[in-house]
Amino acid sequence: MPPDPERFVVTPYEVKGPIDYDRLREQFGTEPLTEALVARIGRLANGPVHPLIRRGIYFSHRDLGRLLDGVEKGTPFVLYSGRGPSGPLHTAHLMQFELCRWLQERFGSAMYIQITDDEKLWARGVSASETARWGVENLLDILALGFDRRTTHVFFDTRSIRALYPLAVEVAKRVNFSTVKAVFGFTPSTNVGLIFYTALQSVPCFFPSWESGTTIPCLIPCGIDQDPHFRITRDLAGPLGYPKPAILHSRMTIGLSGNQSVSTTGASTENAIFLDDAPAAVERKISHAFTGGRATVEEQRRLGAHPEVCSIWSMWRTGFAPDEAEFDAITRDCRSGALLCGECKGRLTERVTGFLADHARKREAVRPWAEELIVEEPPARPAVPGPGG
Amino acid sequence: MPPDPERFVVTPYEVKGPIDYDRLREQFGTEPLTEALVARIGRLANGPVHPLIRRGIYFSHRDLGRLLDGVEKGTPFVLYSGRGPSGPLHTAHLMQFELCRWLQERFGSAMYIQITDDEKLWARGVSASETARWGVENLLDILALGFDRRTTHVFFDTRSIRALYPLAVEVAKRVNFSTVKAVFGFTPSTNVGLIFYTALQSVPCFFPSWESGTTIPCLIPCGIDQDPHFRITRDLAGPLGYPKPAILHSRMTIGLSGNQSVSTTGASTENAIFLDDAPAAVERKISHAFTGGRATVEEQRRLGAHPEVCSIWSMWRTGFAPDEAEFDAITRDCRSGALLCGECKGRLTERVTGFLADHARKREAVRPWAEELIVEEPPARPAVPGPGG
Repeated sequence: MPPDPERFVVTPYEVKGPIDYDRLREQFGTEPLTEALVARIGRLANGPVHPLIRRGIYFSHRDLGRLLDGVEKGTPFVLYSGRGPSGPLHTAHLMQFELCRWLQERFGSAMYIQITDDEKLWARGVSASETARWGVENLLDILALGFDRRTTHVFFDTRSIRALYPLAVEVAKRVNFSTVKAVFGFTPSTNVGLIFYTALQSVPCFFPSWESGTTIPCLIPCGIDQDPHFRITRDLAGPLGYPKPAILHSRMTIGLSGNQSVSTTGASTENAIFLDDAPAAVERKISHAFTGGRATVEEQRRLGAHPEVCSIWSMWRTGFAPDEAEFDAITRDCRSGALLCGECKGRLTERVTGFLADHARKREAVRPWAEELIVEEPPARPAVPGPGG
Repeated sequence: MPPDPERFVVTPYEVKGPIDYDRLREQFGTEPLTEALVARIGRLANGPVHPLIRRGIYFSHRDLGRLLDGVEKGTPFVLYSGRGPSGPLHTAHLMQFELCRWLQERFGSAMYIQITDDEKLWARGVSASETARWGVENLLDILALGFDRRTTHVFFDTRSIRALYPLAVEVAKRVNFSTVKAVFGFTPSTNVGLIFYTALQSVPCFFPSWESGTTIPCLIPCGIDQDPHFRITRDLAGPLGYPKPAILHSRMTIGLSGNQSVSTTGASTENAIFLDDAPAAVERKISHAFTGGRATVEEQRRLGAHPEVCSIWSMWRTGFAPDEAEFDAITRDCRSGALLCGECKGRLTERVTGFLADHARKREAVRPWAEELIVEEPPARPAVPGPGG
């Protein structure tokens, strides 16, 4: 049977084939992030919406409208994102966190960052000492984006377990093996840690409500491939008596090799720019990157290039050309043939190495206080309560 | 098909039928607790062995010989037992703990008591506030037996989770769904908490080795029905680099209704004497209890009674007649017909109510310091290590 070009797979553990995002949204049953909704975000944010939203990188959602209804009535929401620490972050990892940072700034939201060191040990067999080390390193990179230390809280699973566990016990009671098997494709040989893990991953969404004894809505920006994780979380909200978290879904990021899933394939070292890459590595990787250019300079000057499939354009689009005028010029000149790939790569190399140098400084600035944000104690409450008694 | 009188079932979740203990031992593949081993325990304990061992209540073991080899060479061992707190303890629950207390006293062993409040929530749907409450109540009852507060440590799962979790993560990585399915009979509708739970239950065995960075053997006295739990633990020892825990198995305790499984059937309130029973309840329950007596007084005087099937004799045997001469007299007079059931019940009622009154006083004496024994912090170690890197 010949391969079906229409065929694509998007799950939390696999992304392949050319993704038809409209069809994927229909398959998953999510809502489109319409222009009207984007405009509404802008009004409530009291300023231009973030380029990641404006440019359609975020394209889908669940319950965002209801969340914004709350904002209009003065109901605050919290943000939740996380990281499984098995190695250094690459630039595509920063996308979700950058959006969170902007939302925190604009909406005054508390931010919950989960560092899932236990899960990486269960899922990938990374050693505990490695996950502990990468957990701290990754956290510094995330906080360096500019999160507000007064309203940012970190759940570092093994270190925060006393805070997380009582609620995780309540969650775990309400999730069975059938469900995790269906959602994650677990088999009888899956270890019992990974089977349990989804309970811990659901906790941060509900933690603010549980802690305060009220109901505080939560927004989770994530790659569309991670949606199945949070379907379980959303299904649990009702039984636990908490609001369903709203989700904002991004497209997958194109890797430097031109594939559509830099963030879920374990990113070979040449497929992404890591935050600890030296300038020479950045230059090498970008110079070898897949572009939408033509076979010859002459042809490109005449016909223009294809930004849509280009890994370099994707990097401008998702982070390195935040200025709209600059980004429009790059796109226009790429299409027209005025901007050749070599020059474009040179400009991006310069931009990325500048970013990394600046980021390394910011990283050292957050180091003295980063670990203070780790939540270690459960909320002080009259008794160990558990929702629903 | 007529019921097969030979048929019996013994699992962690079900005990039924007349148990053939020799056959059960063969099925489970455990070793008999021989007279030679009992004598060796006595020599090493430097005194008479505990009645529970001497009278054959403990009848089976795994690796006890190896543990005693270590004792002879001066290697200390630790003791581990636990309790799932879903309600009050009854007198049969005290048996394992009484043996632990004696072993602690005689061998100077550290004792680890696990209060599995999370598991009861997952297995029985008891609320978190109930398990928290019963956890403390049950702990007081256990400590009141006379454990040495200097060398007794309590893992109260939700409260000790920070200490337990790093090692539980390592254990969970090495146990898969197939294994827990086979051992516990879990199904796809089993919740993910219960599936994970066996990892936490294995931690106390290995904790002393993990904490000290050495290898410290562990002895677990338990009902033979609980052996499957600890087979998983024993299988994990090798991969984790720790000694396999030794197990000492007891027979099942006969309930007041004459059934063979007071401790695993959820013990209807009339089937056992609970530690919080009032004297009138003790008297009522004992007066209604199943005995090995004859149909008439005349017949019993003439033929004697059957202590082996008698719930009253079982109570004398397993705790309420620790003095060997007294116990022998009861047994002899029962068999001969000299001791009638009414009188025997009256004497037991008096003994039990006296015990409960005394126990209630001891319970209050331990209350001020009981919760100090709860381990809350993980051992201070250079890094989060995890065995095997």
